[in-house]
Parts: sequence; C-alpha cells; structure tokens
Amino acid sequence: MTSPAQPQPVPKQASRPAFARWLGQTNDVTQTFLAAGRIPGLINLAGGLPDPSVWPVQALARHAHDAVALHPGDTLAYSPIDGLPGLRDVIARRFSRGDLRLTRDNVLITTGGMQALDLLGKVLLDPGDAIAAQSPAYLGALDAWMPRAPVYQPMRLDRNDVDISGQMTGAKFAYTVPNFSNPSGRLVGTEQRRELVSAAQDTGCWLVEDDPYGALYYDGEPLPRLLDLSASGDPYDGPVIYLGTLSKELAPGMRIGWVIAAPEMISAMTTAKQGSDMFTSGVCQRMAQGALEEGLPEQILPGILSLYRARRDALCAAMSEHLADLYDWEVPSGGMFVWAVAKDPRLDTGKLMQRGLDHGVCISPSSVFDPEGKDHRATRLNFTLNPPDKLAEGIRRLAEATRAELDTL
Amino acid sequence: MTSPAQPQPVPKQASRPAFARWLGQTNDVTQTFLAAGRIPGLINLAGGLPDPSVWPVQALARHAHDAVALHPGDTLAYSPIDGLPGLRDVIARRFSRGDLRLTRDNVLITTGGMQALDLLGKVLLDPGDAIAAQSPAYLGALDAWMPRAPVYQPMRLDRNDVDISGQMTGAKFAYTVPNFSNPSGRLVGTEQRRELVSAAQDTGCWLVEDDPYGALYYDGEPLPRLLDLSASGDPYDGPVIYLGTLSKELAPGMRIGWVIAAPEMISAMTTAKQGSDMFTSGVCQRMAQGALEEGLPEQILPGILSLYRARRDALCAAMSEHLADLYDWEVPSGGMFVWAVAKDPRLDTGKLMQRGLDHGVCISPSSVFDPEGKDHRATRLNFTLNPPDKLAEGIRRLAEATRAELDTL
Repeated sequence: MTSPAQPQPVPKQASRPAFARWLGQTNDVTQTFLAAGRIPGLINLAGGLPDPSVWPVQALARHAHDAVALHPGDTLAYSPIDGLPGLRDVIARRFSRGDLRLTRDNVLITTGGMQALDLLGKVLLDPGDAIAAQSPAYLGALDAWMPRAPVYQPMRLDRNDVDISGQMTGAKFAYTVPNFSNPSGRLVGTEQRRELVSAAQDTGCWLVEDDPYGALYYDGEPLPRLLDLSASGDPYDGPVIYLGTLSKELAPGMRIGWVIAAPEMISAMTTAKQGSDMFTSGVCQRMAQGALEEGLPEQILPGILSLYRARRDALCAAMSEHLADLYDWEVPSGGMFVWAVAKDPRLDTGKLMQRGLDHGVCISPSSVFDPEGKDHRATRLNFTLNPPDKLAEGIRRLAEATRAELDTL
Repeated sequence: MTSPAQPQPVPKQASRPAFARWLGQTNDVTQTFLAAGRIPGLINLAGGLPDPSVWPVQALARHAHDAVALHPGDTLAYSPIDGLPGLRDVIARRFSRGDLRLTRDNVLITTGGMQALDLLGKVLLDPGDAIAAQSPAYLGALDAWMPRAPVYQPMRLDRNDVDISGQMTGAKFAYTVPNFSNPSGRLVGTEQRRELVSAAQDTGCWLVEDDPYGALYYDGEPLPRLLDLSASGDPYDGPVIYLGTLSKELAPGMRIGWVIAAPEMISAMTTAKQGSDMFTSGVCQRMAQGALEEGLPEQILPGILSLYRARRDALCAAMSEHLADLYDWEVPSGGMFVWAVAKDPRLDTGKLMQRGLDHGVCISPSSVFDPEGKDHRATRLNFTLNPPDKLAEGIRRLAEATRAELDTL
C-alpha cells in the first residue's frame, strides 16, 4: 500500500562520466571576485577593469550600425577564419615600421586577447611540454593553458643577472608581458628585451610578447617592442608572437584581439581557430576596422592616460600613507596594477583576501599568478576602475585588514 | 675579399620547436574549398552557406546601433563569462515547455555553435577518451575535438536494429544531430530519439543534441527534441547537452550560439570558456537579445523555408534527371544537404572532388566526415546557397565529372 505522501521511485540513472582531469585543478578565485562584486559598498582593487567613462559610446554605436548596414557581406556572412582582409591590413600597417615589414599573412584576428593564448596552447603544447613564463604570470594565461597540461620554467625578469637562454632552453615558447606586466606592473628594460630576442634566436624558442597595456605609458616614451627588436624577413619571419587587443584602448566588449607572427605560426593558429570558434564576429571586426581607420583609439588615448595617471598617483600616495611599514612596491610607469610584497614573509595574501572582504576591500592574492600556487606574500592592486577617493579608502581598509591578519600570526 | 653581390652570413638561428602532434593530422579540405571559391564560374555545392538574401540587414543594423547606444554597460564592458543574464533568460524561456523547466542556470552563451563543441571537448575529454558519434559526423565537430585526441565509437542511426546502449557504453558523450544531420541530411525518428535518451539514462553517457538545422523543416511538423524527451528536474538536470545557434535562423556573422544543459555541465563549460575567449562579444549578445525579443527569427523564417524548400526540390529534380544511374540518395525533409552514395563502390569522392573542379563544380568528399577517413563512396551536396538554375547546372557537371572519374577505374 502506497500513501500519497510517499516519494515515487526514482528511475534508475547511471552515474555520469568524470570531467577532464584539468578541471579538478582550477582555483575558485574568479568565483570569489564575482561574489565580492555583489557586496554593497565593497571597494574592488582586485580586477583589471577599465573605467567605463573612457568608452566613446556614440562613435562605437555609429560604427556598429554602419558595419552591418554598409557591409552586410563582411558582417553577417561566414567570414574567413583568419579575419577580414581589411582589418588584417589595418593591423599590419599599424605595426610596420623601419625594418619590420608586415603583411596580412603576419596577422590573425582573435576573439579577444584570451583566445590568442588558447590557440597558442593548442598549436604548441602536447601534455608535459614546457613553457618558460615570466614570473609572476598572468592568471588568464595559466587558465588558458591548463587543458594542455604544461609544465612551467619560471623566468625571473626582475634582476639583470638572470640566464635567460638557460631559462628558455627546452621550452616550446617563452611567455612575457614586457609592458607593465600583469600582475607585477613591471616594465622590462630595453637591454633585457634585446636579451630575450637573442635568447629566442639562439634557442629556437618562440617568444610570446603579450601586450595589452602597450598604449598605457604614463611617464616617458614607449620602449621598442620585442617584435621591433626581432625584425627580420619580408614579410616578418622572426621568433616573436605578438598579442594585441582593443580591450584597453577601445572596449573589451568588442572581443577583438590579434596575433602578429611569422606566417607559419599564423597558419597553424588559423587551423586551431577553425575548430575553436570558426571565425571572430564580423560585426565586431568591421566595427573595429571602422574605428581604427578613423583613428578612434588615438583620439581617446590622451583622456585615458590622464585619467589613469592621476589614479595611479592617488593609489601610490595612499599606499605611502598607509602601507609603508607593511609592504614594499615600485611605482609602475604604466599599465593598470601595483604589485605589493608584504614585508612580513608570514603574511598569506590568500587569507588576507578573505579577511579584506570583511573590511570592505577586495584584492588579488599572489598565489593565483604562480603556476605552482606557492607565492603567498604579494598582492596585485588595480588603480584604473575606482576614482581617487575610493582608491584611498580601499588602501586604508587594506592596511586595517593587513594589521588584523598579522595579529593572528 | 667580399664582393658586393655575395650574400651576407646568415645569423645562427636554432630550429623552432615542433607543433603539437594533432596538427599533423588535419586534412586540407578547407583549403581546397577556399581555393575553389576563387575559380571563376565554379558552382559550389560543397559548403553549408546560407543565401545572403535572407538576412534582415536593416533590422540587424538597428539592433547593432541600439545595443551599443542604449546598453553600453552590457556591450562594451567585460561581461559575465556565461553570458548576459537577459539573453540567457530569453533562451531559457524560448525552449521551456511542459515538463521541461529551464532557467538561466541551464544556459551558456557561446561564440557560435563551434565554440560549444570546443568547450565540450575541453571539459570531458582526456587523451584516449571515447566519443560515440553519429556516423557520418559533422566535420567541424571532428576538427574541434582533434586537439583532445579522442577515439571514436561510430553510432549508426540509419537502421532501426542498432544497439544504441552498446554503442554508447564507455563513451564520455554521444554526439548526434537529430534534425537533418550534417552531412547526411537524415532526420532521426521519434522512436529512435526515445531510444537515445533511454540509452543515455541507462549508461550515464552525456547525450549531445547539436541542432543548427532545427528550424529548417520543409515538410511536416518538427519532431520532439532530445531535450524535451529527457525533461526532468526543476531546473532541468537530464543527460542532454543541447547546442543551438543563430547562424541559420538569423546570421552566422553574429557568432551567437548557446548550450542548454544541467547546471553542473553549464558550470564546467563556463570554466572552460573563461580560458577560451573569456566571454562572447557583448555587442553581438545584446544584438541577439534585441532581435529575439522582437521575434525577428520568427518573422523571417517563412521566407527562408520557402526559398530553401524550392532549392531542395530543384536540386533533387536535377539529381533524378542526371544522377539516377550513378548515386543513391534520400530526399531530405529539411536542413541544407543531400547525401549521395555512389552505386559503384570503387568511386573515390576524394578524387572526384579534384576532378569536379576541372568540370566547374565543387563537392564535399565523404572521407572528411568519417573520423577514420575511410568512407570514400559518398558526397554531401548543399542546396541553400545557389539558385535553381545553378543547382541544375552543378548537378549536370557532377554527372559529367563522375562518368569521367568512373572511366578511369
């Protein structure tokens, strides 16, 4: 006899297959950041977000309309895997100079800068292959390569006596962010840039120059790119794989990035892109082409630089006031981040991130930028998203949270 | 003494590292198709392209403009990895019915349908894992999974006496295109759909329903989706992973696709998407949301169906006239393709593709739709791109090329 309240028998259902192994190794820092975004009054120093006020909204809306209305064949159809020829030509012209001779065969359009990292892993890495990575390294790059199960050879570029060739030997590629590295904010000097290029030529290693912050120089003139320093061939056939993006200079929501490299690398990455998303949205590519042809990034850059320079100064002033006895840091000459290393080696910034949430501030812990997850002593602080008064208040809260955390040790 | 004409010594340059192993296994059929596109007067029956006349250009241009102008926060900023909440809600509502209860937690927005295939491979496949794939299988899916080095268990759905559970056993997922499969044009019947769902429940295997052609029924009413037949849970937590796209119903250049699945699968694929392209263009997502809320796909569908139905009829009439003694085929009741199997088992459609180019027609050889590359006897013929007179002329040329190829055997 079955009473109405009794549960029905559950149909037999076999258990589901396991997920791929790499998924068990992901960290949950992004979930923490997202959850933090919903805490009222929290000051977010953790992300790497632009200030929305810099976007040229009406100009981009016009480019979006015209892209579709005037070029439906480019925007609505299936388009070439490697990108619209017109956009590839604009990029090739934009980066060609002196001995550096680029054609569209040197250019692949990607769905944001992140996709270029994914494609690199796909074309170069079999499980167990090695990457020589500037250390600390961009979290997003580590995420992108995780499914390919690489091993890492950390490459320290914060001293001048490092054996760069030795660190590259045996790696499929070296990964660098020479301009204002994420997370360290470090600008690699010209001499060390030359050493990187020489080491790539000597070892045969591909040399990745990831350059999302290359336009964001607040002091002084831009240094030569690794791409410029490795100029050879017509078209270019050197070892540098240059990754660019419109996310910082125009708007991340367009998801337009590009790779500049030797044609053999562009061709391999195009094969990988075919099975990744087939091609990048024609709507966004044609918008980008219109904006670049009009010089829109150049028009808005002075405003971006003066806004972010003032915010960097505000953050660093607040750090000098509140954090001088707690952390060491260098004032970055560009980019979006300050890297602060705790004076007390016992401080664990993973725990500090959690404690910071109670104090109304969110920071990035250094462990997520270390392929081995071992560096617990530093934090990456972003200065582009918040106005000066919020940056100052965020740093005051961070000082408070740091002292509270140190008190528990 | 060095004469001016003598070449300068070449700087020592170490050889570059090898590409990943899977890249050595790719076929060059896409390059052949692209090269064929440049032959004047060639009739292309090989691709799977829509007719550009179906695109609602002015309406989409307006949506593109309004997306950016009215919703800059959604379109220009970094946005959630899993997609804009508003678009996920629209998709959840569009597919919910009766017992099938979907929320945004069941929905992931992807950069075209292709990206969903890439993410599936990333979250489920370690090297050597098995896929039970409807045979013949979509070339793009085989491409997407190649970097994960899977093995294939072919699943024949063209007979009613097949042991579907047996074919799924041991596989991480089963891959099917129940509506007008690419390449075979086959419509899987309702009884066999029920068997697929039962087998997935019995074996625990995930069941992928790739449905780009689900709106393109030219005769009769749409059959229930595997997603509908597996309805369970609130929200849905069944074994089906449904893949949708706007490429056929609206325009491929927007690169908007979606996955509908159990929340645990959406969550895993979201982690994989973060390292693939971070998020899908907000411009395209907001355009899609505007178009879906306005009912644009429903408005243009009758025109698409009558155009493509007439072209299917024209292709099949020409086939009856010219190919009846050379091939066997079934008239498809929807989709974009007719699958023609040579009566003479010695015909190699790989060689026929090359010969066809001399006769002014381009076709797809069956080998590229077979994971093992062994099926050489069939060809996939597309009827959506060309008007009736060109389809008829293309088939006449194919008959000519086939007879010429048979004469060499």
